[in-house]
Amino acid sequence: MLDKISYKEAFFRCIDNVKPTDLYKNIYVENALGEFLAEDIVAKRDAPVFSNSAMDGFGFKKSDNTKLKVIKTIYAGDKYEDFEIKNDECVRIMTGAKVPNGIDTVIPIEKCIEVTDEYVVIPEIKKGANIRLKGEEIKKGEVLVKKGEEITPEIIALFSSQGIVNVKVFVKPKVAILSTGNELKEPFEEADADEIYNVNSHSIKGLLEKNGFNADLIGIIPDTLEKTVEFIQNLKNKYDVIVTTGGISFGDADFIYEAFVKNGLKSFFRGIMVKPGRPTMIGVMENTFVFALPGNPLSSYLNAFALLIPTLRKLSGAGKYFYNFVYAKNKTEFKTNPKKDHTILGKFECGEWEVYKNYKYGSGMVSALSNSNSLVILGNKEIVKEGEILKVIPFNIGFCERSDFFND
Amino acid sequence: MLDKISYKEAFFRCIDNVKPTDLYKNIYVENALGEFLAEDIVAKRDAPVFSNSAMDGFGFKKSDNTKLKVIKTIYAGDKYEDFEIKNDECVRIMTGAKVPNGIDTVIPIEKCIEVTDEYVVIPEIKKGANIRLKGEEIKKGEVLVKKGEEITPEIIALFSSQGIVNVKVFVKPKVAILSTGNELKEPFEEADADEIYNVNSHSIKGLLEKNGFNADLIGIIPDTLEKTVEFIQNLKNKYDVIVTTGGISFGDADFIYEAFVKNGLKSFFRGIMVKPGRPTMIGVMENTFVFALPGNPLSSYLNAFALLIPTLRKLSGAGKYFYNFVYAKNKTEFKTNPKKDHTILGKFECGEWEVYKNYKYGSGMVSALSNSNSLVILGNKEIVKEGEILKVIPFNIGFCERSDFFND
Repeated sequence: MLDKISYKEAFFRCIDNVKPTDLYKNIYVENALGEFLAEDIVAKRDAPVFSNSAMDGFGFKKSDNTKLKVIKTIYAGDKYEDFEIKNDECVRIMTGAKVPNGIDTVIPIEKCIEVTDEYVVIPEIKKGANIRLKGEEIKKGEVLVKKGEEITPEIIALFSSQGIVNVKVFVKPKVAILSTGNELKEPFEEADADEIYNVNSHSIKGLLEKNGFNADLIGIIPDTLEKTVEFIQNLKNKYDVIVTTGGISFGDADFIYEAFVKNGLKSFFRGIMVKPGRPTMIGVMENTFVFALPGNPLSSYLNAFALLIPTLRKLSGAGKYFYNFVYAKNKTEFKTNPKKDHTILGKFECGEWEVYKNYKYGSGMVSALSNSNSLVILGNKEIVKEGEILKVIPFNIGFCERSDFFND
Repeated sequence: MLDKISYKEAFFRCIDNVKPTDLYKNIYVENALGEFLAEDIVAKRDAPVFSNSAMDGFGFKKSDNTKLKVIKTIYAGDKYEDFEIKNDECVRIMTGAKVPNGIDTVIPIEKCIEVTDEYVVIPEIKKGANIRLKGEEIKKGEVLVKKGEEITPEIIALFSSQGIVNVKVFVKPKVAILSTGNELKEPFEEADADEIYNVNSHSIKGLLEKNGFNADLIGIIPDTLEKTVEFIQNLKNKYDVIVTTGGISFGDADFIYEAFVKNGLKSFFRGIMVKPGRPTMIGVMENTFVFALPGNPLSSYLNAFALLIPTLRKLSGAGKYFYNFVYAKNKTEFKTNPKKDHTILGKFECGEWEVYKNYKYGSGMVSALSNSNSLVILGNKEIVKEGEILKVIPFNIGFCERSDFFND
């Protein structure tokens, strides 16, 4: 019989059985978006690297003088010898330009009382104003970004500011996706009205790609146990992760389990008390992780989303592999079976979440995915009431047709 | 002087001045993740394409009989001639297998009272149970996905299920990124302690890439007006969008504006009442859009995020180009200048949002970006109180180190 573990238990059995890779490679930062750092990155220089003006204006040494003689103009990027500045003198200075020694304050041009080519008249201003001090943001030698962080555009900004162009990142796992069911046609093949298409390989490959992982589509598992054992034997040595879909429940044609076991599989579990997605087996054969997912397109997609992606992230050395969630108010009451956990599709919008089709869609209904933008993982509830606050995992909420995102 | 329009006004002047492209191309679905559909996609077949069993079990014609003779086994993918089924007969049928004519109900194997090779004894069950009817999900000819939708893994699932492998998508704009400031070093160059690195080109290129857009880094704008006019003249005919950073405020070395004007620029505005990011000019030269962003790394990044990305999406034919937001409780009180709008960085976590460094970071502080995961766009407020509900635009909230995303 299938195991009856909870979805949470299934998640932690995946996560806890995975050790991050120790394989890394050097990569140029310009190609590193979405990679996971395999080293702490340390600041090569102070930031700012020299004290500089935050405004276009006039720099001076703060004193009681309010009329200051303009002795020099300094542009961003100008290099110059040190010079003396008197209390009744100032320099015209542009944003980002290096502030000369002895100057401690900058007044923006638009705040001056009078401006001529020879002198300016200034109002009262706080000493130290409008100067960005050397090292006030970052000190040379401090850790800028930690091992395990995902490289984002924001981190690329930081690296660029430090002249860091090459970093060590973890090598991502090699993933093979197999399908079962000799009856399936590939989407690019002709299919008659009795035949259905292979959805799972393509949807899971797309999901992996969106999450920064590549996968090889190996094709269809052979239709005998003997051939399947051999087929898997060959892949085991070549891939870090094998994902299959279908053939894992107790139907007669389902010999996937046996083929993996004959290849030394130690399963973390076979069967989760979840709807949809119950017939799921996850385990390891030597160093190859196996995700034997259900054949139903929704079930396999949801388990790939909730279980496979976090596992792949941890395997890839990512420090962050738990889904973040947003809180949302449940919009429409719906019922579930309290004896199971549930992965439920719906739409998140402006702080509210609405279950898809009152949770009455079937696990074969692919359109439930493209009509949703988020997921609720639920257990121990018979009725989810209108107005209840839910934890929602978004998967496609970036943009909408219209929204008033301004706080005014 | 600089214009004093609001951030909202700036946003709509960008969006309202942009017409979606009418250039499209054919692309294989397997390569289409993140592309925008240039056509409505219509269902090629019903879904399910034939009535099929939702379970491994026994199919029969609902009657008063409770003991049914097993006359046949049908596997998923089996093709067979029509045959007669009597009221006291049934077929063993696997999940996904085509349901024979005349059979209207399937009982799962585990719900049977008695199962032998020859017969089964069944309890009361609702007529029609566990059968997925032909066309109940999708009718051939209906619109599956609308023009302008972004192709996601969920849509790839849907297309695969329909045997749709090639679609029309819009051609994305060609974007050139230029920097100003001959004093800047590229991150891959040697820089001494007087020199700073070009951050903006690289951070904006990364931001575009994350959002599915490519950009060419053209390099540094020449240091005379005459040369710059010629330089821009050449690019104008080659790119749909030109992004520059720096050189757009009223400092002496800022002749970018003039160079664009001499190339026929019609600006939508020059100057936004926002902190940071005031010196920003956006407009159009013939058919080339110009985003002249500020030189400060934070300012240019935030305006690229909030103004450029939505504009690029609309230009690319995307139907969705408004940022979605999440509601969050403000964690720490902070002050702003009520005479300006503000784009404020912070951290969103579990329904709460905390401003970065009490909103006292400078616009040169690149690390504010990598230490934040979301943005609040704010106007007309002097104090944002603890506990206030804010609209937050997330940019990096997918995963975290630990979260309890289960609703239990």
